[in-house]
Amino acid sequence: MVDRISLDTLNGLDPAGFVAALDGIFEHAPWVAEDAAIERPFAGIADLHAALMAAVWARPEGEQVAFVAAHPDLAGKAARAGDIAPASVSEQAGLGFDRLSDGEYERFERLNGAYRARFGFPFVICVRRQTRDAILAAFERRLAHDRPTELATALAEIGYITRLRLVERVEGPGAPPVAGRLSTHVLDTHKGGPAQGVRVELYEVGASGRARLKEAHTNADGRTDAPLLGGVPLRAGTYELVFHIGAYFAARGLDLPGQPFLGEVPVRFGIDAPEGHYHVPLVVTPWSYSTYRGS
Amino acid sequence: MVDRISLDTLNGLDPAGFVAALDGIFEHAPWVAEDAAIERPFAGIADLHAALMAAVWARPEGEQVAFVAAHPDLAGKAARAGDIAPASVSEQAGLGFDRLSDGEYERFERLNGAYRARFGFPFVICVRRQTRDAILAAFERRLAHDRPTELATALAEIGYITRLRLVERVEGPGAPPVAGRLSTHVLDTHKGGPAQGVRVELYEVGASGRARLKEAHTNADGRTDAPLLGGVPLRAGTYELVFHIGAYFAARGLDLPGQPFLGEVPVRFGIDAPEGHYHVPLVVTPWSYSTYRGS
Amino acid sequence: MVDRISLDTLNGLDPAGFVAALDGIFEHAPWVAEDAAIERPFAGIADLHAALMAAVWARPEGEQVAFVAAHPDLAGKAARAGDIAPASVSEQAGLGFDRLSDGEYERFERLNGAYRARFGFPFVICVRRQTRDAILAAFERRLAHDRPTELATALAEIGYITRLRLVERVEGPGAPPVAGRLSTHVLDTHKGGPAQGVRVELYEVGASGRARLKEAHTNADGRTDAPLLGGVPLRAGTYELVFHIGAYFAARGLDLPGQPFLGEVPVRFGIDAPEGHYHVPLVVTPWSYSTYRGS
Amino acid sequence: MVDRISLDTLNGLDPAGFVAALDGIFEHAPWVAEDAAIERPFAGIADLHAALMAAVWARPEGEQVAFVAAHPDLAGKAARAGDIAPASVSEQAGLGFDRLSDGEYERFERLNGAYRARFGFPFVICVRRQTRDAILAAFERRLAHDRPTELATALAEIGYITRLRLVERVEGPGAPPVAGRLSTHVLDTHKGGPAQGVRVELYEVGASGRARLKEAHTNADGRTDAPLLGGVPLRAGTYELVFHIGAYFAARGLDLPGQPFLGEVPVRFGIDAPEGHYHVPLVVTPWSYSTYRGS
Repeated sequence: MVDRISLDTLNGLDPAGFVAALDGIFEHAPWVAEDAAIERPFAGIADLHAALMAAVWARPEGEQVAFVAAHPDLAGKAARAGDIAPASVSEQAGLGFDRLSDGEYERFERLNGAYRARFGFPFVICVRRQTRDAILAAFERRLAHDRPTELATALAEIGYITRLRLVERVEGPGAPPVAGRLSTHVLDTHKGGPAQGVRVELYEVGASGRARLKEAHTNADGRTDAPLLGGVPLRAGTYELVFHIGAYFAARGLDLPGQPFLGEVPVRFGIDAPEGHYHVPLVVTPWSYSTYRGS
Repeated sequence: MVDRISLDTLNGLDPAGFVAALDGIFEHAPWVAEDAAIERPFAGIADLHAALMAAVWARPEGEQVAFVAAHPDLAGKAARAGDIAPASVSEQAGLGFDRLSDGEYERFERLNGAYRARFGFPFVICVRRQTRDAILAAFERRLAHDRPTELATALAEIGYITRLRLVERVEGPGAPPVAGRLSTHVLDTHKGGPAQGVRVELYEVGASGRARLKEAHTNADGRTDAPLLGGVPLRAGTYELVFHIGAYFAARGLDLPGQPFLGEVPVRFGIDAPEGHYHVPLVVTPWSYSTYRGS
Repeated sequence: MVDRISLDTLNGLDPAGFVAALDGIFEHAPWVAEDAAIERPFAGIADLHAALMAAVWARPEGEQVAFVAAHPDLAGKAARAGDIAPASVSEQAGLGFDRLSDGEYERFERLNGAYRARFGFPFVICVRRQTRDAILAAFERRLAHDRPTELATALAEIGYITRLRLVERVEGPGAPPVAGRLSTHVLDTHKGGPAQGVRVELYEVGASGRARLKEAHTNADGRTDAPLLGGVPLRAGTYELVFHIGAYFAARGLDLPGQPFLGEVPVRFGIDAPEGHYHVPLVVTPWSYSTYRGS
Repeated sequence: MVDRISLDTLNGLDPAGFVAALDGIFEHAPWVAEDAAIERPFAGIADLHAALMAAVWARPEGEQVAFVAAHPDLAGKAARAGDIAPASVSEQAGLGFDRLSDGEYERFERLNGAYRARFGFPFVICVRRQTRDAILAAFERRLAHDRPTELATALAEIGYITRLRLVERVEGPGAPPVAGRLSTHVLDTHKGGPAQGVRVELYEVGASGRARLKEAHTNADGRTDAPLLGGVPLRAGTYELVFHIGAYFAARGLDLPGQPFLGEVPVRFGIDAPEGHYHVPLVVTPWSYSTYRGS
């Protein structure tokens, strides 16, 4: 782990020091920091990142391609799944690359080969912002791009990767958003108040199954004490919340059928914006419920 | 298949003919029809069935036990799964007894033995009104009964069994309810009208997995052309409707995220009343939905 | 009241008889029926009406203007409010022209004068398809039209007027839609079934107040025995349903606050399509409700 | 305005100083403070108030009646409406006693006379916790009490009155709740996010009409910048929020009918708990909405 450095310090270093301090943010490309150094001082970390990316976007296509090509292969990474986004394992362990079936692994290898053959550079994606299934879907989708579109897409992904790295390296004001949030709220409109003690499970849903990420119980306000996901980018993909509503109403002592109408209530939804706030509440009685993307 | 007979004809037969005509409705118990014959004429089939059951309820406990004991073992039936409710296979094939895993079969045998040991008669249940999981749950629940409660429960189940048989055998007015209904309706409150063309799947959900029972598409009124289930008793148990909402809104050409908030919307619910009407609508936008037990 | 005539008879009359039989449908314009007579036989009443209107649309602008100009002034009609749509008084009495305040009467006269001055023909509108407020709003809106748009609008309104008259005069198949419908349904998701015995009031809402049109109580299915409005065109305008939910839940004996959260639940909505079906349900608990335009 | 005093200071005063410092909290009853002084020190203001009320509850019935009887007549207060709860006029002006019609004034005088005749002491109620209509309803309801119940009710109201006065007089920790809150939130599930710029009006609803209390617009989060009501007790009674939804969706440029289905959406609700939090959200599309008591 590299020590963090303050934006103030970065602003005051000589150019060589500045480049050294940002080493590893942009892989094998010290020229990015060299070009941006002249724009100092930066008022915020987002401004610093924008200047670094502007240096990339200013280069001619050939140099941009060489820059992308210097990135490691995702396939290789996938084979060493433990290396992907170790920081986020504790927050959001799901259907990771370490769970690839043989068929999935082959599909992945095939996509990787096709991608390199088509574009001449490796497939780059900010894996910390995607579930495994979303990465595979992005692979298929991006294979259909023309080359300029795909080059821009790859550079944008490098933007996401380096933004995360920069926020971890540099302390200071004006940090860009790198964390999303998933929250819920269970409201019992049978009694007219928050539903306390509802067990809530969160799953990541993929083509090959689903993986439980977390379990929590609602507190006196009908919320979970901590966000279901947060502090890191949400991984774009499909999720399912399962609310154990039958047990909740049974505990309230209501006179319900032996086979209650609502037992486990699943709410399946997609996350598209890794830095967004997804509030997915449940307004519920023993006979009805509604949910929506809240705020 | 025995030919159907009219209630009028039944009312006019001599007692022996009446008993013969109802042979097989109450297993090995011609005395049931003999006792009820004197109550003729019956205005409706429900009245006839009530009189038959009244004859059973009027007997002393010892004779009732012998009557129940003459019923075949459910375990034996389960082993010959094809024999259970063949008429309903086409309407509602689900997680039947033909799909018992070894573990489930053992559990079933164990319950059966415990039941006989405790009560001295076989476990009787109207299998056409239950999913497999509901039968297993009923087994566990009824094992905790005291003997008088359980005897009454077994007789009530024989009431359900014979009511179905009677309605199939006898034509005429005043038939008791023997069929339930499951229906749905998809309303698109983004555009303000019925959602046409939504693919809807119906699953039976059990402890060991789920089985798809049916697929349909909504019509111009947002409903399915035929009820999802109907014409026979609903099997008490847990079900799941899956509404393919993402594909529907995509087909409408809305500008939605690459990973839409709502793709497949599952609605899991319990059916407790086999002769009831369960209307389970979905009121939906790309960002919200609600459902309830409707009417 | 003129006797009704069958479409078959109309198809078989000589041209003069055909024209005579339709006298009064198109005011002071026997040529409309003369032109359409040649298109006989008509398979349905809607086809007959389409042919009559086609005869109007086929005329040059000058003759169309003369045709519109032969219609009486709405202002004059308004002064004799009893003459407007007598047939519909019983179904849907609301904020009629007989309730104009002096200020409203003056506004109306002013609009009428401005309209005639601008277009050279009187303001024509099918009053049976509009509330008073909707007519005043249409007046303002149509005053902003250019002349060709407004002439087309006036002819379209004559289409609505004559369609209603034709359906009343002629019996037979293929009648065009001239009736709308307003219905409701109250579902109690606290208990999980239809809400029976809920008092429902229907009001027409105008700028100068509101007028109660009807009161009904929900039946065992949570619906009113008859549609709230129906059999005639709905008058485009603003309405309010008031559901007496507090009294309903109090009668159920629930333990609710002295000042309940929900007492009278107003649902205010607009009707835009006079021949449409507006289903406005209420899904309600003592602490929540939802409504939507259903089907 | 009396200067505020700290709980610490109160705890440290000699008994006479303590009584003097609380003068006017309990009207004409210095013995209340005298009795409570011995319980010092108090850890919080709620504890102090509880001790003061305990001194009242400890007295025999005759003294309690004399204590209540020393309170001024509400009728006299009502005649001088400006004197009632001046502090709250700015927060929540509604259908105050200054708007009594002659008929209402007479009804009020009649109730007052009947109450005194029945119980022998004046009607006491914490007017800052009630709307005018709620006070009249309480009058009718309390007239039906037996005497012990009503005496206890009057003392409880004095508890509410003095609690408010005490919190205004004394600074320090452990203050009892004396303020409620009314908030809203408008969520647009047509677009999937908060509805910004919706005009929201709040009315107090009484038998004789309604009075507008406030108007606000929703901000970027779909909420109002400040609670609709707060900082003081909510007045128990009936309220109506009117959401100007038609204008909001028109501004979004949606293709809606000339007469939109939803224009002004009224949500009428009761407040029963003056110190409670009432969150009344609206989840809305152009064709549907739901609301509930949230948290």
